[in-house]
Amino acid sequence: MTLPMSRMQCAQRDQQDALAEFRSEFSLPEGLIYLDGNSLGALPKATPDRLQTVIQQQWGSQLIRSWNDAGWVDMPQRVGEIIGQIIGAEPASTLAADSTSINLYKVLAAALALRPERAVVLTEADNFPTDLYIAQGLTQQAPTQREVRAVTAEQIYGQLHDDVAVLMLSHVNYRNGYRHDLAALTKAAHAVGALVIWDLAHSAGVMPINLAAAQADFAVGCGYKYLNGGPGALAFLYVAPRHQSLCRPVLSGWFGHAQPFAFGAEYEPAAGIARFLVGTPPVLSMAALEVGAELVQRADLTAVRAKSEALTECFTALVQAQLGPHDLPLISPKLASERGSQVCFSHPQAWPIMQALIARGVIGDVRAPDILRFGFAPLYLRFTDVFDAAAHLCSVIQSREWDQPIFHAPARVT
Amino acid sequence: MTLPMSRMQCAQRDQQDALAEFRSEFSLPEGLIYLDGNSLGALPKATPDRLQTVIQQQWGSQLIRSWNDAGWVDMPQRVGEIIGQIIGAEPASTLAADSTSINLYKVLAAALALRPERAVVLTEADNFPTDLYIAQGLTQQAPTQREVRAVTAEQIYGQLHDDVAVLMLSHVNYRNGYRHDLAALTKAAHAVGALVIWDLAHSAGVMPINLAAAQADFAVGCGYKYLNGGPGALAFLYVAPRHQSLCRPVLSGWFGHAQPFAFGAEYEPAAGIARFLVGTPPVLSMAALEVGAELVQRADLTAVRAKSEALTECFTALVQAQLGPHDLPLISPKLASERGSQVCFSHPQAWPIMQALIARGVIGDVRAPDILRFGFAPLYLRFTDVFDAAAHLCSVIQSREWDQPIFHAPARVT
Repeated sequence: MTLPMSRMQCAQRDQQDALAEFRSEFSLPEGLIYLDGNSLGALPKATPDRLQTVIQQQWGSQLIRSWNDAGWVDMPQRVGEIIGQIIGAEPASTLAADSTSINLYKVLAAALALRPERAVVLTEADNFPTDLYIAQGLTQQAPTQREVRAVTAEQIYGQLHDDVAVLMLSHVNYRNGYRHDLAALTKAAHAVGALVIWDLAHSAGVMPINLAAAQADFAVGCGYKYLNGGPGALAFLYVAPRHQSLCRPVLSGWFGHAQPFAFGAEYEPAAGIARFLVGTPPVLSMAALEVGAELVQRADLTAVRAKSEALTECFTALVQAQLGPHDLPLISPKLASERGSQVCFSHPQAWPIMQALIARGVIGDVRAPDILRFGFAPLYLRFTDVFDAAAHLCSVIQSREWDQPIFHAPARVT
Repeated sequence: MTLPMSRMQCAQRDQQDALAEFRSEFSLPEGLIYLDGNSLGALPKATPDRLQTVIQQQWGSQLIRSWNDAGWVDMPQRVGEIIGQIIGAEPASTLAADSTSINLYKVLAAALALRPERAVVLTEADNFPTDLYIAQGLTQQAPTQREVRAVTAEQIYGQLHDDVAVLMLSHVNYRNGYRHDLAALTKAAHAVGALVIWDLAHSAGVMPINLAAAQADFAVGCGYKYLNGGPGALAFLYVAPRHQSLCRPVLSGWFGHAQPFAFGAEYEPAAGIARFLVGTPPVLSMAALEVGAELVQRADLTAVRAKSEALTECFTALVQAQLGPHDLPLISPKLASERGSQVCFSHPQAWPIMQALIARGVIGDVRAPDILRFGFAPLYLRFTDVFDAAAHLCSVIQSREWDQPIFHAPARVT
């Protein structure tokens, strides 16, 4: 068997990697190969100190005064601007706030209100489940008849009719890594008068995105994956400037009020994107997300994407050279250009295989029922990591190492 | 002028205070008198280390494995149980999650769905604005005709008719500190078939509450006031066990699903209180709230309430002995038993007066248009603090010290 590249060649690519310096900005355990940054991004080294400053100085010493003096009150907008640059948003169109699910509820409600005469929320049946659940909850609550129509990825274009109010899609599929053409689908939806909501959970921070150029309508996304904001980090939302003043938020909380500290009895939405805020911003979470987003903001996302494609190609080629297509079928798109930054295989023993890999110090994850998922965060992964990870994966499968009872114990979170 | 008590007498009360040891558990700036724990609670000394453990060990070293190994996945319930004990809730009926505003939206939507044939959400016109705004947003979105009826505190009993679906009140008024009789109002609402939602933002952690004994239906509250969870901390929600299985959440996210990691396409609510979760729990915020709530959990809330009443009585008596009723009218109830843990006065120059006080190292806050608000957190306030604060307040007013231009600059957050 001849491998498509040697470990030495991988080491050479690491030496030539213009992004290599970013790895030193992350706190990564020695010897661990972490291919799960698409589930929980690694810890930036700057985060602990930033949080200590916020906790001890701003909260502990300055107390309530920090809402003004430390700029806590503007954090949703300030962190939102950083993320806005990462996703190609217009200024003043992105907020850091709440969770992805709650932000999706906000923008889906807003989008439906802009298309009152249309019944259908068109989405992908294989969309991330919380997106489907939120749409189900919202449409069941809606005053007029609404329907969530969930189709396959291939059917989307054919289902874009003039009854579609909103096309709601994840840019990159969480399960197989398929990447939609954001600009083309936005254009196709607009051609039939529909609005588009993009969930950027698996793409923000790992590839160039240009929401403004695509004339996207709404977007949401996750802070704890490629933005490295920490476990359960705050999420973000985007509303195109042309829609902002037309939206009356259903989650109408005091931080989205035109004058929150006037304490008036009637809700009056703030001008612009701020109306999509709800409660008091969670400052500790916001500070952690700010650090992670600042790191990504410093990176050239075109270079990040190029490295991401190279990493996933390298991994796929190495695995496929060592295992037959029936040993471990690839379920991600074959072309790197059609994938996000992840590679997924299916195997009936996905769960124990992943446990055996983790025992070897290679962390990926499993998605029900049978998917082995490997994510590649270009800011801290090396080509040699990929080479080693592929070797471990192939070894675990070839040796049936996974077939030990110790690797079959279930866990709540997979 | 004879003061109702001397500083020496206050010092004696501090020496006899059974709660005095709690002060050493908080990190408080030297020389500062902090009467704003009802807006942002002080920093527990245990918080920085706990956060460092979560950030560096659980996130940094263990990464994704901490969802299982460090129990991140159960944090909403675990922290919720601690808070549940503080508010007298049944086991498995309280969650730490999201913001107060968003939790109010969840429980108000649930309550309205339980009373589909009734139109009215009865509330107090002087309720905290975000509660009013959330009710306005939700009722405007509702499929059937709903109405928010906002009345004065005195009118509530008289307005409890059989068209009331939900009585939605803050237990303690944020502006004047008036404390409702939670048990009596719950009973009165139930007598006409209405459900009750209590916002415990200004009472949780500072007085005994017994939601179970009162047969309350729903409650929400804030983590960053007397629970000391940090700026913008996570909030909590309570749903009586008898209602939980009848509620189908409108904010139906994956963490409230019966099997979140089965990744099924159809929303199926989790059994019990967990269905009121939405997105991925924010672990850093959750850890900070856990520390603060654990501290309160260790305190005897009957003793906390007794000290709270004594502190507010002491402050009120000292101020009223030094200033005439027209110099600084008390707008809080005269009887400590009718107040929460705060004392409020009105003065047309409330803003510059507070700035002058802050310059002297006494921090309270101002609520529009003319209210000076002082909160008393019994776990870290001393009677000598109260004595000194009253002296500073009276001195600032008597000397017109506030009448300097420096104290008139506006700030965004008041």
